[in-house]
Amino acid sequence: MQIDILKVKAQLLCGGEFAMGPGKADLLEAIERERSISGAGRALSMSYRRTWLLVDSMNRCWKEKLIDTIHGGGKERGARLTETGRAVLKAYRALEAEIAQSVQGEALDMLRGFLRDEPLPRQPMSEHISDA
Amino acid sequence: MQIDILKVKAQLLCGGEFAMGPGKADLLEAIERERSISGAGRALSMSYRRTWLLVDSMNRCWKEKLIDTIHGGGKERGARLTETGRAVLKAYRALEAEIAQSVQGEALDMLRGFLRDEPLPRQPMSEHISDA
Repeated sequence: MQIDILKVKAQLLCGGEFAMGPGKADLLEAIERERSISGAGRALSMSYRRTWLLVDSMNRCWKEKLIDTIHGGGKERGARLTETGRAVLKAYRALEAEIAQSVQGEALDMLRGFLRDEPLPRQPMSEHISDA
Repeated sequence: MQIDILKVKAQLLCGGEFAMGPGKADLLEAIERERSISGAGRALSMSYRRTWLLVDSMNRCWKEKLIDTIHGGGKERGARLTETGRAVLKAYRALEAEIAQSVQGEALDMLRGFLRDEPLPRQPMSEHISDA
């Protein structure tokens, strides 16, 4: 999530594993849109393997599955977000919005005032290395 | 910055370059403590090259240098944060604190309620892969 000069990344942890973050939230939205896990992966230019690892990770980190797959050849075949999946996605986006609102204050204004629009050009390393 | 189940990373951008983030803020604190750039790198287990690239990046992204090096053999030899360096570090930590305060709300509580304490064990890929 980028707000002006600020980039903020919020990730939720389950034990040592990442249960939700920007990439997983985008994947949930793509699954809801594409009605297919592999289709969602393609839409996000993610490998099949990576897509499934993210889905597997989400389904293991939350008390209920976030994504449901419907097998067989019928019209309903494909993937959907569960009710929990939709609730978790919504709460994560709300959390991001809360963060975005919180950082419109004094500290960010001060930082903006000190920041250049573009960095100065990089100098060769040798000119900078000293024994300091 | 980790707040309970939430990990938040705030980065400031200057053009396409990262001007400030958790690693650079830690480095500024270490320089202030160690009074030396290479000593700060060692304290953070960072390579000499990486340490200097971060210092160089910070000094190019802000309107004034954040780190000053004092050469020669005297007592004052070494590195210090400039006044701007101290102000930027303080404002960045304040920004992190604002974010931490903003995320104590409803969305995080809802997410916490849905989250397991530990993820379920990982299953072999083959059991998950389907045509969904």
